[in-house]
Order: sequence, then structure tokens, then C-alpha cells
Amino acid sequence: MKKALAIDVGGTKIYNAVIDEKGEMLTEVEKHSTPHDLDEIKNIFKSIIEKYENEVDAIAFSTAGAVNNENTKVIGSTGNLVKGYKTIEFDKLSKKKVFVENDANCAAWAEHVLGASKDMPNSVMLTLGTGVGGGIIVNNKMLKGKSGAAGEMHFKMYPDKRRHCTCGSYDCFEAYASGSGLKKTAEEMLHDENVTTYDVIDGLKAGNEKMTAVFNRWQDDILAGIIGLANLFDPDCFVLSGSMAEFVDTDYLEKSANAEIITMPTKVLKATTGNYAGMIGAALLALEVK
Amino acid sequence: MKKALAIDVGGTKIYNAVIDEKGEMLTEVEKHSTPHDLDEIKNIFKSIIEKYENEVDAIAFSTAGAVNNENTKVIGSTGNLVKGYKTIEFDKLSKKKVFVENDANCAAWAEHVLGASKDMPNSVMLTLGTGVGGGIIVNNKMLKGKSGAAGEMHFKMYPDKRRHCTCGSYDCFEAYASGSGLKKTAEEMLHDENVTTYDVIDGLKAGNEKMTAVFNRWQDDILAGIIGLANLFDPDCFVLSGSMAEFVDTDYLEKSANAEIITMPTKVLKATTGNYAGMIGAALLALEVK
Repeated sequence: MKKALAIDVGGTKIYNAVIDEKGEMLTEVEKHSTPHDLDEIKNIFKSIIEKYENEVDAIAFSTAGAVNNENTKVIGSTGNLVKGYKTIEFDKLSKKKVFVENDANCAAWAEHVLGASKDMPNSVMLTLGTGVGGGIIVNNKMLKGKSGAAGEMHFKMYPDKRRHCTCGSYDCFEAYASGSGLKKTAEEMLHDENVTTYDVIDGLKAGNEKMTAVFNRWQDDILAGIIGLANLFDPDCFVLSGSMAEFVDTDYLEKSANAEIITMPTKVLKATTGNYAGMIGAALLALEVK
Repeated sequence: MKKALAIDVGGTKIYNAVIDEKGEMLTEVEKHSTPHDLDEIKNIFKSIIEKYENEVDAIAFSTAGAVNNENTKVIGSTGNLVKGYKTIEFDKLSKKKVFVENDANCAAWAEHVLGASKDMPNSVMLTLGTGVGGGIIVNNKMLKGKSGAAGEMHFKMYPDKRRHCTCGSYDCFEAYASGSGLKKTAEEMLHDENVTTYDVIDGLKAGNEKMTAVFNRWQDDILAGIIGLANLFDPDCFVLSGSMAEFVDTDYLEKSANAEIITMPTKVLKATTGNYAGMIGAALLALEVK
């Protein structure tokens, strides 16, 4: 059975594991802190690859940032990653095949092959974490667009400049539907800039009325995004993943969205492939498992 | 050379012409008022088809409303068309091949094969008329989604219920970026419910300050939509068509969008295939011209 060395590159951690074409992990997951120096990142990549490349068929990177259509390098915004990250020539890091894809796209692919959206040709993955990632699958293929950057969840929730977004613009879906967005919504509604995402979640669990109202407002912003995306893509389902997804009421989102969309009813599901979906999806993509 | 009988079905008019696989019109365009009775509509279809079906290879309908993935019938909202329109079995109207597609999708295909988006694999067409239609092409294929209804331009501009939309919901892109949206923006900004779209356009041309401000606000709502769609689809270009498109400043939209999007630069172009783009696109699709 074919296998890949999967490497997940995030703003704070780098993970790696060997994964086979069924998505099974063949090694323990190794963790490293993400260095803030370009050469140090490259050295980590090299040492991981050196250790495993003889026993695998491909090296599969799941990374923050948009990745080109050739799956060889990062072209778009890379969040917290070091300046110069885009200059890395991933395909020259190994004598084996090297495949690179955006982490949300990888996670969407893992769900498509093995998880919540299995057997559904059209799906939209939303990773609700500190930010919001997107991975869109159209007719069993990853939506990449002209340069590979498609699926960025930066469409406007308001066109009149209320909130800054990490992308440099204003009022994107990410600025509302993310964990950071939940904190901001809480700050605005409670007039308290020290309130945290944890305060809202704890309050929600404890049945606190104000915190529940904040949470519901945040969830309804996610709903607004889902409605728009459902009308644009007419997907079989939405898959929600990421640290914030566990708190979301998918039944409410599905029912409310289906009451409003003009396309046919869709599903809203939680991801099932777990925390390492990015690595699993990258391995499946690198090994061309569909 | 192959040819199709193309029939365009809109809320007020039905057009027909014979069109070859190069998109050339071989007959004069015939026009009929759209009846408000289902049997009368069917009778018009039958009489047009009877007249031409022996000399063509296919019957190609470009119609209001979403069309299924088999291109045989209308499944979605049909705007001003008669109740029961969705029950028409288009494929039984002729002994020849019958192909049905949504009018905005047909227009997008005409532009893709012959017009502004020629040689570009990824494009988003916006038809700015009384409403807003959408046709999205991904990797040289029409984006249809699970049931055929993808490309509906009903994503929210505001999530807090300001304006009703024709779809039954609130605050969709169509409710702002359409001709009706321009009238509504004028009403709101000028506190005058009798102001018309024509008043705004006439004022814009005459350099009237208030009307120019209304127009700019409307155009910036279109810009907001283009930014979101560019981040989602990473298209080679946007193509603007429809009666309102002629007034739009595509250079401004392109420059402003490219300053804000996080995907690679895109183009904003005006459609070039003219008023009968729907019929031309339907004919090309029916004759499988790519």
C-alpha cells in the first residue's frame, strides 16, 4: 500500500506523520513549534523529510496560505507564518514527489474521501478556528480557480466598514464567523473589551442570557454566510470543523438555511476525520486517492 | 454545420431564432409576448418548434429559473413566469434533442465561447437587469451544483434584514445590485419613493451631485459583491451584462476589487455577445460547442 509523509504547517505548530492511502496513520504524530525564522523552518522540513523519505512514496504538505495550481508553492497570505515563507520551493525539498495544498482544502478532501461529506460530489468545508478557512469541492474536484487561491472565506457581511479583517480589508465573513469574530461580537454587544471567547462559551454552557445572546448572534452570522454559499454553490452539504465547530448547533443551521435558500435543501454536518484532517487530506491528495 | 432552434423565455418576452454552432444567427429573431397562461406558453413553444424542428439538430431553451442537471426541466424560482411553468416537460416538446438551461448560465456560456471571457477557464457572469442573474464557469464547465441551481446571486449584503428580496428573503446581493436595487437605494438616500432608475441614470449623465452619490453607492455594492466572489472563485474575470451594465465603470470596479482581494488580480469586463447572448449560449450548449 502506498504511503506519504504528511507535514502540517500552522502558525504555531508543525506536525508530521506517515499516512497510507487509506488515511491510516502509520507513525505517532511528531510535533514541533513553528520557528519565526525562514531557515529554521526549512531545516525542520529537511530533517523530517530526511528521516522518512526512503520509506514513503510522496511528501504531502498541508499548509496555511493559498497554494498554486501546480501544488508546488504557497502564493497567498500566510497568516502568522514567517516572511519569506512564499519563497520556499517545496518541490526541491525531496527527491520524492512533493505535493503542497492549503490546510482547509486538505481537510475538505479528507472529509470528502473518508468523512462527513463522503459520497457527496459537492461540498463546502468551513474551518471555524481563530480564523475561518474554506475548502470547496465541486463535482468531486477541489475548487482552485485561476491561480489556486479559491475558497477564501472573505466575502463581506457588511459593505460599510465596521470591522477590520486580518486580510487587510473590512467586514469579511472570517471577521464575524471566527473565534476572534465571536470575541469581537461579545465586545460590541457587552461594551467590554476584556471579554473572551471562553467567557462566551462558558456563559453559553451555564445558560447565561447575555452570553447566549452573543453566541446566537455569532451563530446567525455563520448562518448568513451558509445561506449565501448555498445559493452560490448548491452543495450537497456543508462540513464544519475547527475548534469553534463543536459549539455550533448544526441542526439549527441546517433547518434555518433550508428555510431561506432558493437552491435545493442542503445538509450542515460536523467534520469526522479529527484534528489531523489536514495531514490526512494532504496524504490522500498526494497519493491521488479520490 | 450543425444548428439549433434557440428559444429565450423571459418574464415579458419569448424570442426565437435558428443559430449555428459558430453562434451565427441564421434567421431573423421572432418575438412573442409571454402569456400568463400555461397552456398558451406551451402552444407558443409547440408552434415555434413545429415551424423549425425539421431543419435543426436540437431545440435549445434559455429560460428564467434554475434548470436541473439533466437540462430537461425548470426546478427553481421562475420570477414572473406563470405558475406551473416548472411542470413543463421540455424534453417531450420535440422529437429532436431538447436542451434547457438557465438564461444567465446560457449568457455566461456565450461569453465563454465567443465573447469577453473567451479562452479563460474560470469566469463569473453577472447580468444586471431588473434583477441580477449569475452564471459561473469553473475549469471550462458550468457550475451547476447538486441539483443544477448553483450561481444564484443571493448572498447577503447585510445580515440584519433591511430590504426584502424577490427570493422571499432579505438583503441579498440581487436586492442591491439590480436595477430595482438602484431605485431602492435612491429612495433610501433621497427619501423619495417616486424616484426612478431613469432619474438616477439621467442625473448621473447630467453630473447631478445627489444622483451621482446614489449611483456610486449602488456601484460600490456591486464592488462589494465582486470582492467576495473573487475571493471565493479566484476567477480569471467577471463579465457584466444586462441593461444596467452599460452604466457601470468596469475600470473602477477592477482596480478597486484588485486592491482588496486576497486572491490574484482579476478582470472586470463588459459582455460582448449582445442582447441575444442567452439564445446563442443555449444553442452552443445544446450543440455541445466548448
